[in-house]
Amino acid sequence: MRGTVPQKVKGFRDITSTQNALREHIIEKASEIYRRYGFARFDTPILEYAECLGKYLPDADSVAQGVYSFKNPEQEPVFDTLGKEMRNPDNSVIMENHYLAMRYDLTAPLARVYAEGLWQQHLRGEIQGKTNLFRRFQYGPVFRFEAKLDPGRFREFWQMDFDTVGSEDVSTDAENCMILSQALENIGLKRGTYLIKINNRKIVNGLLFHAGITDKDTETAVMRIIDKLDKIGIDEVAKELGKGRVDEVSKAQIPGLGLKDENIALIVNFIKDFEQHSARKATIEKLKSKPAFENDIYKEGVQELEKIDGILETLGFSEEVAILDPSMVRGLGYYTGPIYEVESLEYYTDEKGRKRKVGSICGGGRYDGLVENLLGVKVPATGASIGVDRLAELLTLTNQMPKQIDGPVIIIVFDDALMPLYQKTAMQLRLAGINTEIYYGAKRGLKHQMSYADKNNCTLAVIIGGDEAAKGVATVKNLKLGKILAEKITDKNEWKSKVQTEISLENLAFEIKKMLSE
Amino acid sequence: MRGTVPQKVKGFRDITSTQNALREHIIEKASEIYRRYGFARFDTPILEYAECLGKYLPDADSVAQGVYSFKNPEQEPVFDTLGKEMRNPDNSVIMENHYLAMRYDLTAPLARVYAEGLWQQHLRGEIQGKTNLFRRFQYGPVFRFEAKLDPGRFREFWQMDFDTVGSEDVSTDAENCMILSQALENIGLKRGTYLIKINNRKIVNGLLFHAGITDKDTETAVMRIIDKLDKIGIDEVAKELGKGRVDEVSKAQIPGLGLKDENIALIVNFIKDFEQHSARKATIEKLKSKPAFENDIYKEGVQELEKIDGILETLGFSEEVAILDPSMVRGLGYYTGPIYEVESLEYYTDEKGRKRKVGSICGGGRYDGLVENLLGVKVPATGASIGVDRLAELLTLTNQMPKQIDGPVIIIVFDDALMPLYQKTAMQLRLAGINTEIYYGAKRGLKHQMSYADKNNCTLAVIIGGDEAAKGVATVKNLKLGKILAEKITDKNEWKSKVQTEISLENLAFEIKKMLSE
Repeated sequence: MRGTVPQKVKGFRDITSTQNALREHIIEKASEIYRRYGFARFDTPILEYAECLGKYLPDADSVAQGVYSFKNPEQEPVFDTLGKEMRNPDNSVIMENHYLAMRYDLTAPLARVYAEGLWQQHLRGEIQGKTNLFRRFQYGPVFRFEAKLDPGRFREFWQMDFDTVGSEDVSTDAENCMILSQALENIGLKRGTYLIKINNRKIVNGLLFHAGITDKDTETAVMRIIDKLDKIGIDEVAKELGKGRVDEVSKAQIPGLGLKDENIALIVNFIKDFEQHSARKATIEKLKSKPAFENDIYKEGVQELEKIDGILETLGFSEEVAILDPSMVRGLGYYTGPIYEVESLEYYTDEKGRKRKVGSICGGGRYDGLVENLLGVKVPATGASIGVDRLAELLTLTNQMPKQIDGPVIIIVFDDALMPLYQKTAMQLRLAGINTEIYYGAKRGLKHQMSYADKNNCTLAVIIGGDEAAKGVATVKNLKLGKILAEKITDKNEWKSKVQTEISLENLAFEIKKMLSE
Repeated sequence: MRGTVPQKVKGFRDITSTQNALREHIIEKASEIYRRYGFARFDTPILEYAECLGKYLPDADSVAQGVYSFKNPEQEPVFDTLGKEMRNPDNSVIMENHYLAMRYDLTAPLARVYAEGLWQQHLRGEIQGKTNLFRRFQYGPVFRFEAKLDPGRFREFWQMDFDTVGSEDVSTDAENCMILSQALENIGLKRGTYLIKINNRKIVNGLLFHAGITDKDTETAVMRIIDKLDKIGIDEVAKELGKGRVDEVSKAQIPGLGLKDENIALIVNFIKDFEQHSARKATIEKLKSKPAFENDIYKEGVQELEKIDGILETLGFSEEVAILDPSMVRGLGYYTGPIYEVESLEYYTDEKGRKRKVGSICGGGRYDGLVENLLGVKVPATGASIGVDRLAELLTLTNQMPKQIDGPVIIIVFDDALMPLYQKTAMQLRLAGINTEIYYGAKRGLKHQMSYADKNNCTLAVIIGGDEAAKGVATVKNLKLGKILAEKITDKNEWKSKVQTEISLENLAFEIKKMLSE
């Protein structure tokens, strides 16, 4: 007979109080900086019409791939390109169950918001040239159905984005890098432990154009292959640009893009040339010295980097914070201009004792084609995103956050007759601002109560038995201190004398506050 | 030809910065109180296996009704009642695409969490009697597909729950009421503007039992009909308990439950008897005076209310905060003991000038059958929930929150050549903790910039043209003050003199901080 196993959906997870505290910390500290630059929080729904989300996923050519999508339970009209309801031969409105999709990022819904706001104007043909400015930040879960799930990866994860739509000025791109830097440092990352790498899609596009590659699909394919550089190295990138390669781990045959040898050489040499990071100004000079600099797109890309460098320098964002890296391209298809990625430079030791890096923790760039999909009008846009869960992982792996957050003070329950005293005591502590729980579990053994307190990382236990109640006192056990001392003090009586104190009920809130602040 | 209209899914909405600020306020203030009582934040995914969520929706008999549900894109094994993979005759594992569902509340996922933790023990037959204590709070969006959508209602809305699983002590129910009261007051509701109504399902069940109604489905149906009391009044309730009624608005025929006249009279008289709220102790005495008090279930219900009243009294939660209301039953099917609902007593004036109430803003109760569905074991549980969006609506409708939150200071952009000065000025303000935006929009007319500032509720505009730059000053326009004075001062020059000031760039951060704090 068929049964129901209580379990989470594969690839999904519950978030503990400690993990939540970490997320809250990241969001609070990053929000502060996002707001500092004038962004306001804006939220969109978890569900959108699939067709409104468009096709932006890095490794998928259609929305259906990689996305949780399903038919709306209610039927709705079908619209034509002019936004009018389409009709059957008998003049009835054509109805269908449109596909809904759970958002796979926070950028595609932003395009919907912006396009929705301009839709009526668009239909009236009123959008000529430049459009209005819209800036917002947003955070929350996004959903990806990845058929193959890497260990430690999830199908629901949190992102924290900020974007500027309606500005073509690359000063905003410089600002995006500054925001990422300040947000990460506000979160607690030390300068020198992360590095912002900046490039411009126009440079790589211009290089390809210079080599005679003008096909959009080939351009995108080249970007995706170069994006694997960190993982597979330059030799394998060269193979994949050419005849193909064998994946080292899976032994699978990866088909090549089939570029001409001379073009592969051009790309590979270009990348190798910038393998060693140099100072931003030196990188710009080197970029200018290339033959591709004759090409307008390439040139524009270099000039934009020059402008960004100028702003960063003016405002004191040194080479320690941000470098130019012409070999960094990012995998997403939609970028059109400056791009940036933040790499964590910190190492951690994995369960097998190997030294490892978390890698990329933030990314962003300019995507001037974003709204075009929905509105048919090019609208300049740029933004960046912090991978909240990835960053949380980094902070945990590198021991920058407590292993477990403090739980409440717990009032041990001995005797039902004393319940009113327990409740009054708890209220006294709560009114003094102390988080306090009365143990109300059905399993009432002291061992159970203490193991519950331990599991929830309770800071102190307040013990009031009949004797204590008669004397008007409580025995307070400092569980937090007890854990620390247990590693240092072996004598049980000595340990107990340091960890356990008798306190009069009158002074309880005051004394506990003192103990908690120590 | 078919087109894509950029739009939100019907029944969904975007959340502006002001609405977000309100949600943040509610969540922050309620979290503080939830933590004060020892609850820790715990999060579950948006998606769950549909079968793990069970059948808890108020007006639906199956999960499929009222829930966004779809087939998992990947196949997984089917399990038997012992949690073993089921197999085909050829011994291959039976695979299927299980149904996934977007959570419709935060209680059903909690049951999954708790049952999941006990599952292995359960399979080994190790759960005898009492189970462990688990307490958590959680907030976030839940999703309901309601075919008929009332105006102002949405299919995605936020709830904020706290629950205690594993405790049979109704002291926790008293605590739940205290938490709701303290949370609402911490959020800003004044005492006397809300009222907690407490009842016990056992009382109504006992009353029905006393009348010979022991069928579970009839019990639930009676609860759902009584739950309409506030909306339709006692006479219509009586009709629906009997032969049926005609809905006043829709003119639809609502079938009746077909109870005997004497039973309808019993229920109606009971409700009428408690129509006028009296003091808690008086209500308890009246409940005790009923013939149904001979019935064990009814009696237990009254005694539990007595215990709750005692705790509330001991801890100072007066009749102004919480009353006993034996006619309040709540619509959900799963309650088994004490139940509570918080009603806002405040009126607002709707767009047609009518005085209206927001009604219920919180609810909760004991549901000892929650985990049974998944584990086959009764586990005591109790909790309550704040309707975050409903409460936000209340605070907005009763003008307890600002109409729009403050935007940043905006630096007007006149001249590209001055951009480095604008950027340095912005950085100076940001480092002083002032939220500052440089206008980077493509539309550069001053009118555009000022209308953008107005739309985003910018507090001040910093204007630096060529003349100002040469003098090392900025003209600062106090937009916030300007709006206030515009209603009082008609003389344009006078208005300007009060609203506009010249400030040296050196002192800008200091002076703006002063202006913002005024």
